[in-house]
Order: sequence, then structure tokens, then C-alpha cells
Amino acid sequence: MTVGKKILLAHGGGGRLTNEFINEIILPAFDNKTLSGLTDSAEIKLDSPNICFTTDSYVVKPLFFNGGDIGKLAVCGTLNDLAVSGSKPVAISLAMIIEEGLEIEILRKILNSAAQTAKQQNVSIVCGDTKVVESGSVDKIFINTSGIGTKLPGAKLGFDEIKTGDAIIISGTIGDHGMTIMSQREGIKFESSLKSDCASVGELCISLIETFGSDIKFMRDPTRGGLAATLNEIADKINCSIEIYEEKIPANSTVKAAAEMLGFDILEIANEGKFIAIVSADKAEQCLKLCQTSPNGKDAAFIGQIADKGQPLVELITAVNGRRIVQMPYGRELPRIC
Amino acid sequence: MTVGKKILLAHGGGGRLTNEFINEIILPAFDNKTLSGLTDSAEIKLDSPNICFTTDSYVVKPLFFNGGDIGKLAVCGTLNDLAVSGSKPVAISLAMIIEEGLEIEILRKILNSAAQTAKQQNVSIVCGDTKVVESGSVDKIFINTSGIGTKLPGAKLGFDEIKTGDAIIISGTIGDHGMTIMSQREGIKFESSLKSDCASVGELCISLIETFGSDIKFMRDPTRGGLAATLNEIADKINCSIEIYEEKIPANSTVKAAAEMLGFDILEIANEGKFIAIVSADKAEQCLKLCQTSPNGKDAAFIGQIADKGQPLVELITAVNGRRIVQMPYGRELPRIC
Repeated sequence: MTVGKKILLAHGGGGRLTNEFINEIILPAFDNKTLSGLTDSAEIKLDSPNICFTTDSYVVKPLFFNGGDIGKLAVCGTLNDLAVSGSKPVAISLAMIIEEGLEIEILRKILNSAAQTAKQQNVSIVCGDTKVVESGSVDKIFINTSGIGTKLPGAKLGFDEIKTGDAIIISGTIGDHGMTIMSQREGIKFESSLKSDCASVGELCISLIETFGSDIKFMRDPTRGGLAATLNEIADKINCSIEIYEEKIPANSTVKAAAEMLGFDILEIANEGKFIAIVSADKAEQCLKLCQTSPNGKDAAFIGQIADKGQPLVELITAVNGRRIVQMPYGRELPRIC
Repeated sequence: MTVGKKILLAHGGGGRLTNEFINEIILPAFDNKTLSGLTDSAEIKLDSPNICFTTDSYVVKPLFFNGGDIGKLAVCGTLNDLAVSGSKPVAISLAMIIEEGLEIEILRKILNSAAQTAKQQNVSIVCGDTKVVESGSVDKIFINTSGIGTKLPGAKLGFDEIKTGDAIIISGTIGDHGMTIMSQREGIKFESSLKSDCASVGELCISLIETFGSDIKFMRDPTRGGLAATLNEIADKINCSIEIYEEKIPANSTVKAAAEMLGFDILEIANEGKFIAIVSADKAEQCLKLCQTSPNGKDAAFIGQIADKGQPLVELITAVNGRRIVQMPYGRELPRIC
């Protein structure tokens, strides 16, 4: 191997070492013709001119965690943004900013993980970029992925579609990703039984839309800020109130215990393989059943509904029928969670 | 202003402060309906399903330099990648990774610059992302832009189109961007008379393709690694030799002096508002004339041709008719130049 064991500034310099790096590290990981052309941009022929386009940067710390790593996360995160927008993913870009001195073996693991995740979801990583900065100017590696998807013909999603009485479904347990990262970062004992939910929910979202069409009104993946942020955004955007039932919200007991121990509200914790769907009330039961047939939706649950109190408000109805207002999180709780 | 004077971790946390930040800083800078929807991805209706897709991260240091800043650079860089691929830009994403503590005023300047550049080129910034990391985990701010363009019907570009005898044109002086950054970084006196060429070459590329069609065989913007890297890549890829004439390569005298003083080969210095075009020999004169009518091509020059020596080789023919091999740069010369 001519590339050596550690990343050098020259690997990002655009010269001979960049070429070696691309040929020995990048191309073998992402084996596809479009990328191998090494043109200034990837040429793609789409099935439809109606597209969704999204971008996200990933700065998660640590780079490897139970259930995933920054490579898998970067691919799943962007695929999920396309999925909840009602589109079928077509192509992904992957751009890295790497700290000089990073071990090539670490990078290789991350890239293989990203490549494998993309392959499993039948999407190609078609273009990319590598920058290397001096030691101390970035913490190991940050990754940006952008994605293009073609809009599903049956998708009619949007804040405007949501009506009073619509049901809210969550595709599974909440808080798994955030609590895994935090526990691992704090070095807390129960970390071994915590596992990030990092996964692509694309197939399930597509099958919901293809089956129920316009009865699926809105979808979103509750990442940073968790369920609390997502529901508050909806309430705010459409000026409605939302009621959710504490007892119906699925969560793993270890996640609950970890959140309690570290003083977090589980509703505010990031998820990386879940989505909420707001659906017509009379289709809620059927939607739920469809979700539960998928490995990514086996713990799906009906958790509440769009109410109408004349003001944007998210309320949690507790086990004893008490009510607590769920506020938009402040945002400082969990830095570098994704 | 509720956002305050400095970037906080919470501005990237996905909660209330992120919302304030988006509403007060991001949306006013990029005033467009698609972005303001704040959906998980931007919905776009394209004119054509044949697209180009590209991504680049920008880590330039310093953030502000004579002739531009990281915001302008991030937009121009991606527009140029689309342009030299023979496409018309449609949409751009902009994702930032910001260091906690960065002054909001600096960020605002960068965003306004990016927005203004995009507006001038009639392209919208339709989606974005903001991550904030702890002080010390990133050097101030890094930006990723990805871009989508629709392929021009008349474009027939590609390594395979290049033939022996084709002419090589450069759209203007070389080395301006790289030497401006280096001089400014080193605090060298002549910095004031150096100015980055940071600009979008989109319009000129489009008009070349629309006018000359398949006689434009290949285009590329010689950024990292400069003209030396770009020409070597071509020679390598199509197994041809390339001859360029030292006296014909346009360069500002201050740039030449700065390169000499700092010990750089000007052929290896990054450009951020230039492209090379490989064109049919019998159309070279006309192409050149068209370039020279554009402000971004006024110093355009014919600099050499595709030769045939049976091996990949780039040769510089000197003023006294000597020959020197132009090697692929090693890549360590100029870190964080873009």
C-alpha cells in the first residue's frame, strides 16, 4: 500500500497523493461507474424531473458507537430526509473534511460502512470531495452527504395537508440514538445494552405512501431535538395543538433509565432511524399494521392526535390523565449527536 | 436581536435557539420560498431529467481574502463544477459546520456574500444545514455546497471526446487565487495588489457550448493543484501527451513575482475563476474570441495542444524552445487554499 498509515495534508492537496488516495481508498470502497469517471460532477438520468434535494453534515462524537458509525449515519440521515419528503433516493454525494494524522484504517472502516449502507438501500454514492486540514483544525473527521430523490407520484405531504383529528404514529422506540451516544461519551456502565437505532427508514416510508397515498399527510424524522422539537415545529407551523399520550410512546427501558440518570427528557433525545407520520384518523390502524410488518417499524405505535385548541401547543397526557406542556427544547442538551 | 453576538452550541442543537438562528440569520440572507418551507428536503421541478450533481467542501484560510471570502468561494466553486460539466445550474445546498464562539457578524457577512453570489448567477440556495461544534473542534467555519444542474442539450464533453491536435484554451490569468491566499496568510507586503479570481464562469461555459456544441470537447476548472494537476489528469486519463507554451500562459506579473518569492511553480497554483477548454483546432480562434468578449474571459489565451507521443506526458515549451516535463504536483504545497 503506497498510501501509508495516516492521512497527510497532501492527500487533500489535489496532486499526486490525492490521486493515490482516491484510487486506493475511495474508489475501492464505492465501486460504481459514475464515481470512477472522476469528472467534475456526476451525470445522472432521472426517471422524473420532480426531485427532492437535501443536505446534512455529520459531526457525531464518538465516530464509532454501538449500532453504527459516522459513515452509516451520514448515509442513513440523508436517505431518511429524502424518505420523509416522499421521495425515492437516487444518488448521494459524500464530502469529507479530515484531520491530518487520522489513521487510514479508521477512514477505511467509515467509508466501507457508508458504502455498505448505501448499497443495502440501492442508492449510489456518485460524487464526493476530500479536504484535509492541519491537525487541530477539525476533530478527526466530519462528513457531509447531500441527496437527490425522485418524488413519488402518490406523495401528497406537507404541513398544509394536516387536519384536526389526524393521528400521529411513531415508527418505533424513541431516544435510542441519543442515549447511546451520550452514555458512550460519558463512559457510563449500561452503555453496552444501549444501541443506536441508526437505520434507513426509506422502504417503509415509500410503502406507506404507495399504499395509503394522500392519507399520509406528513412525515418527519425526529433527529436533533427529538420528538419534542418535531411536534413543536408542526404545532407552530400550522398553528394547531397536539396531544400525545405518555403511556403510548414506545421506549426501551434501558434508554429510559439512562435518560433519567443523566437528567434528560427522553422526548428531546435524537433518533436516527425513526419517523413520525401524521395520517388520516380512519387509516391509522391500517398504517400501524403496515409499519409493524417491517423490521424498522415493528414497535410502531399510535401516540396521539392533532387537536384544536386555537393555539400552537404540544401537550403530554400522563398515565393519570394529567397534562404537561412539552416545550421546544432549548437546544444545548446534546451537542454532536449526529 | 435575540440571537446574540456569538454562535452558541445551542444554535446547532435543533431546538428553540436553532429556530431563532434560522429565522433571524439564515432565512433573511437567502430569501426564497423553497428554503423558507423548512421541509426535510427541497422540492424542485426540473426542466430536464438529465442532471449533473456535484459536491465540495470549503476550508479556506483566511475566511476573507482580497477578491472574495469562503461564502462566495463555496458558491462559485460548485457553480464552476456544474459549468465545466456542461450543465446549467438549478439549485445549490449550503451546509455549515461552525465553531462555538464565532461572531455572528462574521457569519452574517459570509452568508450574505454566498447569497449575493448565488443571486447574481440566478441560482437558488434551496436547502441547508447548520452544525455547531465545541470551540477547538473546527477552525471557525467550514462550508459544504452541493449543486444540481441540468445538462445542456448541446454538450458533448468527456475525456473520450479529446483527439490529437485539439487546442487547449485557458480562460484567463493563472495563479491569482492561490497566491492571494498564500501571501495574505504569510503576511507578505505585496498582498494588496494580489486579488483572487474567485468568480463563476458559468455563463461563459454555457455560451461556448451553445455556440460551438461538440467542438468543445472537455472543460475543467484548474483549482487545487492548478494547471499542472488538471493537464496531468487529462494526459493520464486518455494516455496522450500535452504540449503547452510557457510564453502563452497568461499570468499577472505580481502573481509571478509572489510565486517566485515564495518558491512556488505558478502552474501548480489554484485558480477559482478559470477553466481550460479543449476544443477542435479549427474552432480555437473563434472560441478564443468568444471568451474574450466576456469579463471572465478577457485574458483568455490559446496555450497548447494535445500531442501524440504514445505516453501520458505534459511538456512545457519554454521561450527558447526548450522542453520541461510538468509533473503532477505532490499535493502538499498549499493546504486550505479552497
